[in-house]
Amino acid sequence: MDQYVRPFSLCSRYVIGPLETLIKALKLLPGVGEKTATRFAFYILNAKTEEIRTLVNSVRDVKAKLRLCSICFHLTEKDPCAICSDPRRDQSRLCVVETPLDLMAVEKAAIFRGLYHVLHGLLSPLDAIGPEDIRLEELKERARKGSFQEIILALNPTVEGESTAGYICEQLRDAGVKVSRIAYGIPIGGSLEYADPLTLTRALENRREL
Amino acid sequence: MDQYVRPFSLCSRYVIGPLETLIKALKLLPGVGEKTATRFAFYILNAKTEEIRTLVNSVRDVKAKLRLCSICFHLTEKDPCAICSDPRRDQSRLCVVETPLDLMAVEKAAIFRGLYHVLHGLLSPLDAIGPEDIRLEELKERARKGSFQEIILALNPTVEGESTAGYICEQLRDAGVKVSRIAYGIPIGGSLEYADPLTLTRALENRREL
Repeated sequence: MDQYVRPFSLCSRYVIGPLETLIKALKLLPGVGEKTATRFAFYILNAKTEEIRTLVNSVRDVKAKLRLCSICFHLTEKDPCAICSDPRRDQSRLCVVETPLDLMAVEKAAIFRGLYHVLHGLLSPLDAIGPEDIRLEELKERARKGSFQEIILALNPTVEGESTAGYICEQLRDAGVKVSRIAYGIPIGGSLEYADPLTLTRALENRREL
Repeated sequence: MDQYVRPFSLCSRYVIGPLETLIKALKLLPGVGEKTATRFAFYILNAKTEEIRTLVNSVRDVKAKLRLCSICFHLTEKDPCAICSDPRRDQSRLCVVETPLDLMAVEKAAIFRGLYHVLHGLLSPLDAIGPEDIRLEELKERARKGSFQEIILALNPTVEGESTAGYICEQLRDAGVKVSRIAYGIPIGGSLEYADPLTLTRALENRREL
């Protein structure tokens, strides 16, 4: 094939329109590059019509049918959400999280039976996210009105998470409610050897007497 | 939180219908598990309506608008496909591949200017895939009718690829056309140290005098 050695750009000339459009759309998904998008596209191309209909409808539905609970701001179909309207939940404890995903992670651990409050963000002066950009006013309102004995801050151990926790703690001082935050330390199954210095520092600082 | 130690299954009680349906649909994509599907779902949830419309339409279009070229069986909007109907392509060489993805990979290398034939499968007695299940008869027909000087088999170096190549070679013996196959060996940028024994065997067997 010596006569073919000179490279020439064919790729753009033989574009398969709908396939390229789909690959481009799929590449917008988080963590999906050209190769993964192409694999997805071919999967979709070969999938049963029924399966595709389910996918298309569920993509549409998720935006159309879901809203935020007017009490805790978790995602829900009905307002208030199932957790807020469940009388069996412990009404005296409130867990504050950043996102609905965090809420679902806490809920999956099946250890917390109280109520939630989703902030939908963390304070971040660098990104110009101030107290009015997240559901902080609503949290203060709930803390004032509600009969919470304890508000547990379950925010990520990042700079933003830490400073948001500090700010909330300060803002809730007048509400007369105990504010705590989840423990940071070595994860279960983790290894001291691979823990970063900051995690180790936290783990040592927060040691408990046995 | 000592009173919460007894785990209880909440997960199923607070299901968010549309979100779960979407996650389930996304989990059907190749290589996508619960966590990735959840990330995708939240991305979709927060994406702009316009973006979602593009995604939904492109998923629908890819199935509705694409068909197989009646000559080479590559995916195409128009029949025959852009490659088959391009008079500038070398009509004397035919490259046989397993899938449209393989065709696109060869095309991306921009070294081959001939025509293609997509088999849409490989012979695999274990999976009950025989010669009549792939586009072999059509290949023989093209080889008989066409004026090909060379048919290049670009099949994966697997058991199925090898046996399909052997079978095709035998079937095309009467067609009076030269049949070749692509070289298997150490990939460029690869390392002898990490090459598997079989690849090394092939690389040694197929060594070329310099």
